[in-house]
Parts: sequence; structure tokens; C-alpha cells
Amino acid sequence: MKQVVLAAYAQGNPKSSDFRIEDVPVPVPGDREVLLRTLYIAVDPLIRFSLDETLLSGASRMELGSVMVGPTVSQVLASNHPDYAPGDYVEGRTGWQEYAVVAPDRSDYRGPPRKLDPALAPVSTALGALGGPGQTAYEGVVNVGRLKAGETIVISAAAGAVGSMAGQIAKALGARAVGIAGGAEKCRGLLELGFDAVADYKAPDFADQLRAALPEGADVYFENVGGDVTMAVLPHLKRGARMPMCGFIAYYGIGMEGPGPDRLPGFYRQIMAKGLEIKGFAGIFAGQKGLDDIAGWMKEGKIRFAESVVDGIESAPEAFASVFSGHAHLGKLLVRVAPEG
Amino acid sequence: MKQVVLAAYAQGNPKSSDFRIEDVPVPVPGDREVLLRTLYIAVDPLIRFSLDETLLSGASRMELGSVMVGPTVSQVLASNHPDYAPGDYVEGRTGWQEYAVVAPDRSDYRGPPRKLDPALAPVSTALGALGGPGQTAYEGVVNVGRLKAGETIVISAAAGAVGSMAGQIAKALGARAVGIAGGAEKCRGLLELGFDAVADYKAPDFADQLRAALPEGADVYFENVGGDVTMAVLPHLKRGARMPMCGFIAYYGIGMEGPGPDRLPGFYRQIMAKGLEIKGFAGIFAGQKGLDDIAGWMKEGKIRFAESVVDGIESAPEAFASVFSGHAHLGKLLVRVAPEG
Repeated sequence: MKQVVLAAYAQGNPKSSDFRIEDVPVPVPGDREVLLRTLYIAVDPLIRFSLDETLLSGASRMELGSVMVGPTVSQVLASNHPDYAPGDYVEGRTGWQEYAVVAPDRSDYRGPPRKLDPALAPVSTALGALGGPGQTAYEGVVNVGRLKAGETIVISAAAGAVGSMAGQIAKALGARAVGIAGGAEKCRGLLELGFDAVADYKAPDFADQLRAALPEGADVYFENVGGDVTMAVLPHLKRGARMPMCGFIAYYGIGMEGPGPDRLPGFYRQIMAKGLEIKGFAGIFAGQKGLDDIAGWMKEGKIRFAESVVDGIESAPEAFASVFSGHAHLGKLLVRVAPEG
Repeated sequence: MKQVVLAAYAQGNPKSSDFRIEDVPVPVPGDREVLLRTLYIAVDPLIRFSLDETLLSGASRMELGSVMVGPTVSQVLASNHPDYAPGDYVEGRTGWQEYAVVAPDRSDYRGPPRKLDPALAPVSTALGALGGPGQTAYEGVVNVGRLKAGETIVISAAAGAVGSMAGQIAKALGARAVGIAGGAEKCRGLLELGFDAVADYKAPDFADQLRAALPEGADVYFENVGGDVTMAVLPHLKRGARMPMCGFIAYYGIGMEGPGPDRLPGFYRQIMAKGLEIKGFAGIFAGQKGLDDIAGWMKEGKIRFAESVVDGIESAPEAFASVFSGHAHLGKLLVRVAPEG
């Protein structure tokens, strides 16, 4: 089988050459272990935190030569564990490889692989709308952002897995959703998903688009990006606005200090002048209540899952790199490793 | 009478030459107006926000040649208003002048001049412990910081009017208070006020002092400063720490961008890695509950008011400038314009 291992720590944004494809034997499950065949890999931008040689974040650093970590949807091929039967679909964190053996009794804090009901929704949604991205969006909009009906939320990286869900959750709550994304195609996609207005940060008139989209300002800024986009958004935030911070993809390749000028004084001025509330919540999920609400909204047709799929495990490195270079995909970017069933 | 007017907008930190002393006639009170004699002027660092030619903050800009604004304690000399009698002590915002006429019926959102009971506490405390600084400290520690007994708070500009109160309020709540100040004298003063530990940011071993003062990290960072001090504090904050932001004196003379490198990426990393919660609350006061709690703690001897006094209205410009250059005073810096009684 094939697996993707880390060949080099990322310098700035990850490149596909930071990874290497290796051929290894398919592992054999032992007592109370389960053999899984990977169907989908989610190339999660937060993985970037583990690829720092100097480890500037709170994440744990990956060793060179080890298999890339990350959430997956798999199907049980063989099971020596009573809770899992061949054919079962599961969501877990088995990494970028075609097969994996897991021991449900010895799982980490995330718990054993989560069994999926393919009748409820396509199993790939366990990596998007009904998985980490959906829960993250819910946490940011509902719990951290405390968005209320009638309020306005502006979302950066709105075309991403989390952002596209955040906007739809906002709409389901009766709020106004404004999305920022790069390129006309992604912006069109957001309007189709139900966003009220969009602004294309790659367009020369981005500032005008943003002003037109936020005539009365925003109550919540769902922050995924940082950098120039955030500098453009801050003047549009209302007094007392909340800023749930889910990520900052503009800075993932930068350490503690970027090239000047220093924008921290201006950031402080905005926080003070407007009494902003900022809260980081990476890796904090909304829990079952969030999943239940999202599933309910999906049933009512209020939320559609947006995903883009590339095929073959060999595509994973390039797909991952594309997340950082402003790819044209809408929604969750998945690598399909094997067909279902 | 003498008054201090704005002669030039501040470039960077204010200088005493940005102000001019003028001689003008003592004003005459009209119908339902009151003539006040200024006793104390508080040289409030937040006034800096109004001295920007380019007005980078949300404050309203002062016109050149107008009388400096700011909180004062005064005594009623003559009154044509039934609520005020000669000899009454009041706290208001009558600015940097020896006398002022006020119209209590036409006051701004802060309300009419607040009458003070000199038997309760020295009237000068209406500008410190029992005034804006005390309420600001209470708001930051209790309402925004949500500090609990047994937790640790670290306070920058701890020797200032707000910081010295914040530390004492923290102690009154049963928490551990760590103060950061510049110079051995101010640090000694903080220990005398009851702070558990101090770190002198002007000392060559500041980093070691800070580490020793925060062996288990801090749950709350009461932010008054920004810049190098904050960069030193951030690594000591615990996961989920709260950061009430009251000011950023290191940046008051800087616009939206300072000289590089850009420290915003590192700030974002800390927010995300630790799930920090940051909230600006300048100009938001704790209200009567805060004043009552502080007055109660003062009665119990748990809080002492710290103030430093310079004499004569001519001293106001230099006193104001000294706030930004790291003066050696502890607590609220007051200008005594006239003796009481």
C-alpha cells in the first residue's frame, strides 16, 4: 500500500515536495484490532502547525519520515473487535495512507473511530459539515461569536470547509452572512450557498466590495486568515463586535515575527477603540449539540455540504499545498483514496 | 485665572511644549449654573487619544487652542443651582483650569458633577480609588477578567492609577497579584501595597524576574502597555487565559503601524495556541457596584489609595508628559491646583 510521509519541515507555506510517497506492506490487525481501508482524507490546514521545525505553536511536532496525520473516513475490511464489522464506515484520524490498523480500546482523547450511518448523509460529510469543520464553525458562530438573529457576520476564508459552514449556520440562525473569498468563482459559489453578500479579496476593488457588503458594519468577524484581509475588515466592525479566531492562514508560514511594518499597534487601537472581544478556539469543537443542530438544518435544507474532491492518495501533498496558495475549490477539500462499498 | 490649552498635536509621546498656559478672566455663573474652584486635576493617559491630528482612535479630536479636558475635583465657590451649595466638593470633567462654570442641567452623558462626601475618604480619591481608575480596574479584574480566588493575575503598568488598584482588587478577591513596573522604587511600592510578586521591566534580568514571579503562569493578564512588556508576558499565560485590555501606553504615540518587524503573527499564534480571550474596555466603568465594593474594601483596610501629587497648574503639562516617559510616581498622578477648604 501507499502512504505519505513527511520528508521536510515546511518553510513558509507547505510545498508538495515536503512530502514523499512510500510503499509499505498492508498492516495485519491483532487481537481486538481493526483493519481499515481509507476512503477519504481531509487535508486540514491546521496540520500545518505540526510541520514546524521550531514548533512555534502549541501543537506537537511531527517527526520526519512519519506518516502524515489527519482525519479520514474509512471502511472496515477486517475486524477482531466486537464493536466493528466488515463494511462499517468510520471516521477517525488514521492519516494519509491507504490502509490502517486501529485499536479502539487504546484510542487517544478523541475516542475510538466514530461509526457513520451512510443512510443519514454521504459518509464524506463526516469530514466536513457533520465533522470537525461543521463543529468548528458552530463553535465559532454560536458559542464564541454568540451571533443572534438580525445581526451581521463577516467570514474570512468563507469558501473553506469551516467558512462555508459558518455562513450557512449564520443564515440558519436568522443572521446576515457576508463572505470573503479569493476569486469570482468561489464568490459565486458562496452566493449559491445562501450568503447574502460577498467580497473578492483578489479583486482590485476589494475595499469597495467590502464596504458595499457591510453598509452597517458587522457584529461578528469569523477570523480564519489574518494579514491584509483582516486589516481591511477591522474598520467595518461595530462597537463591541466579537471576533472568534479559528485560524490565520496568512501567518501559518510565518513565525512570531513577519516582515515590517508592525501591525500590532493598529490591532490594539481597533480592539480598544471598539471594545472588541477576540477569542481563539482552534481544536475546540461544539460537541454533539452542534452536530445535532447541523444535521437538523441539513434535513430542513437550510445547510448544504460543500466539498471538492481530488482522486488518489498521490494527490494529497499537492492538495494540501493548494490550501495555502488560495486554491479555487469551494468547501471541504477531500482526497478520495478508494471508492466506497 | 490660569488655564492650560493645547498648543500642538502630539507627535509620538506628548511633550510639555505641546501645551501653553494662558491667563483669562474667571468666568461668571449664569442662571442655574455653578462656579467651581479646581482643587485637583488628574492627568489621565487616555487623554492622549484626543491629541492626534490624524485621530487614529475612536476619541474626538481636540481643537488647537482649546482648554485641556480631563477629570477634576473642585469645590463650589458660588451656586445658582439648588442642588449645589458653596463649599460642596464635586468630581467632574472641568479640564485643566483654575476655575470653571458648569451647568448641571446641560451635562454630557457622564451626568452632572458628582457630589463628594469628604468624611468618607479624602476628596482626591474621587480621581483614583473611588473614581474612574478604581472603576476601570474593577471592570477589568472582575467583569472582563472574571478573576477568581486562587487564580493569578499579572498586571502591566501596575504602579499606575489603574494597575495599582487592579492588584489590590485582585488581592481582595483572594487571588495572587503580580505587578510589572519600571524601576526598583515603584516595584517596592507595589510590594508595600500587597502585590505578591513584582518584575521590573527596566532591569536587565526582567525575563528572569517575570519567570520567577509566575512559576505556574497567569490566568489573567491586565493589559495596560503593549510592546516589549506584552511580548514578555504572553508566553506565561495559561491556556484559556483572559486578557482585559485597558490601554497600551507603548503604542499611544504610534499610528496604525509601528517600525517592523510585524508582531501581529506572533500575537495571533499565542491567541490560537492558548485559546486566549482578549477584550478592550477603555471608557467602560464598573458602575456603582464597583465603587461600593471598593469603598467596602477600603474600610476593611484591604485597599489603600496610592497617589502622587505635584503642585500648581503650571505643573500639569510636565506631569502629563511624565506619564508617557515612565515616571517614578506610584498610583494616581494628581496636580494640586488649590488647597482644600
